[in-house]
Amino acid sequence: MTFTYEYPRGALTVDCVVFGLDEEELKVMLIQRDLPPFEGQWALPGGFVQVEESLEDAARRELQEETGLDRVFLEQLYTFGNIDRDPRERVVSVAYYALVKLSNHRVHAATDARDAAWFGVHDTPSLAFDHAKIFSLALERLRNKLRYQPIGFELLPKKFTLSQLQHLYEIVLERPLDKRNFRKRVLGMGLLIETDEVEQDVAHRAARLYRFDERKYRRLVKAGFHFEL
Amino acid sequence: MTFTYEYPRGALTVDCVVFGLDEEELKVMLIQRDLPPFEGQWALPGGFVQVEESLEDAARRELQEETGLDRVFLEQLYTFGNIDRDPRERVVSVAYYALVKLSNHRVHAATDARDAAWFGVHDTPSLAFDHAKIFSLALERLRNKLRYQPIGFELLPKKFTLSQLQHLYEIVLERPLDKRNFRKRVLGMGLLIETDEVEQDVAHRAARLYRFDERKYRRLVKAGFHFEL
Repeated sequence: MTFTYEYPRGALTVDCVVFGLDEEELKVMLIQRDLPPFEGQWALPGGFVQVEESLEDAARRELQEETGLDRVFLEQLYTFGNIDRDPRERVVSVAYYALVKLSNHRVHAATDARDAAWFGVHDTPSLAFDHAKIFSLALERLRNKLRYQPIGFELLPKKFTLSQLQHLYEIVLERPLDKRNFRKRVLGMGLLIETDEVEQDVAHRAARLYRFDERKYRRLVKAGFHFEL
Repeated sequence: MTFTYEYPRGALTVDCVVFGLDEEELKVMLIQRDLPPFEGQWALPGGFVQVEESLEDAARRELQEETGLDRVFLEQLYTFGNIDRDPRERVVSVAYYALVKLSNHRVHAATDARDAAWFGVHDTPSLAFDHAKIFSLALERLRNKLRYQPIGFELLPKKFTLSQLQHLYEIVLERPLDKRNFRKRVLGMGLLIETDEVEQDVAHRAARLYRFDERKYRRLVKAGFHFEL
């Protein structure tokens, strides 16, 4: 079946930058292309948007098909529309990004990719298309966002110590944070609820456990809340 | 001439939310549609992206054609891709926004619109398509952005008083700001250069004139600068 249009139309794709965090490092999910162009090269997971699916559904579907990742909370990043970004023809791509806990997301290459794997954000291979540009914007956005929205909380256990939270911020921002300052700022947001529990089974003095006040957070975001580290 | 594709393709448009600021009020530029669908209704300026132009070039071209506005600094806002947002067919729209000084931008309806005019942001008529949603996201983004980036400076004269700057923020945010707090925060950013001049021809005590340190600002933004009002 073919489709005929009076004017030429570009194609529309989605691309996903999924960041994964473990105890040590921030990683990014890449797939190895098994079709031209850029056959055999690494790229962001993504593909063509079908006419009867929303952009976000397309992003979720491609991610699932190419990497096995599902139930990832995707946010729209930016739409890339330079005329010559794809050697085949005019292709506009809507990019999404997400931050997930590495241990929750085992990956497997699926239908459209030869391979899928996590790479350290400083160890990425050369990427197909303008994907290096998309990746770099996503990293910048992630770091900026962490500065004024506490997005890291879903990556921690339900109850966590302030050291665990600081460690998470330090991995993403890739710089040490002053402990006293960090605690002051983080507690000053008023978004942490002190529990009456402490860490279990630690050699050092057991630290207090906190949990995240998600309802209060939603109220503050609605009112235009920002916080700065 | 017709174009044939193996798979159905959606169409791609751009839409522009241009905010205009005068001494009193924040306004938005709208056009009255002269073609179906929504013929005669007000809408954001915008239209179809041509295959050989970038997204931003398309936004600029449509804005110029429909409203006469040109040399506007547009930023990408969000891409709207719900399946049923256009009654004609699947249309994905990349939205842009801008903030301009009203007095610099006289408008005239051009080729594709019946009329073009500024509306107070609280006095907008019912809008075509999902343009009310696009407009409302743009307003939210503008206000958020003003909180952590000094985007208002290009709307002021080259040398300005702190009261003029505060007034601009108050109009966009639509709430009074505490004078002492505002001055402390704004001077604390370290982005204003005190000149040795004062206001001319005022009845009250003449206030100090400042100018904006754009080079320092660019350095700070690169380093991940945020400031909060």
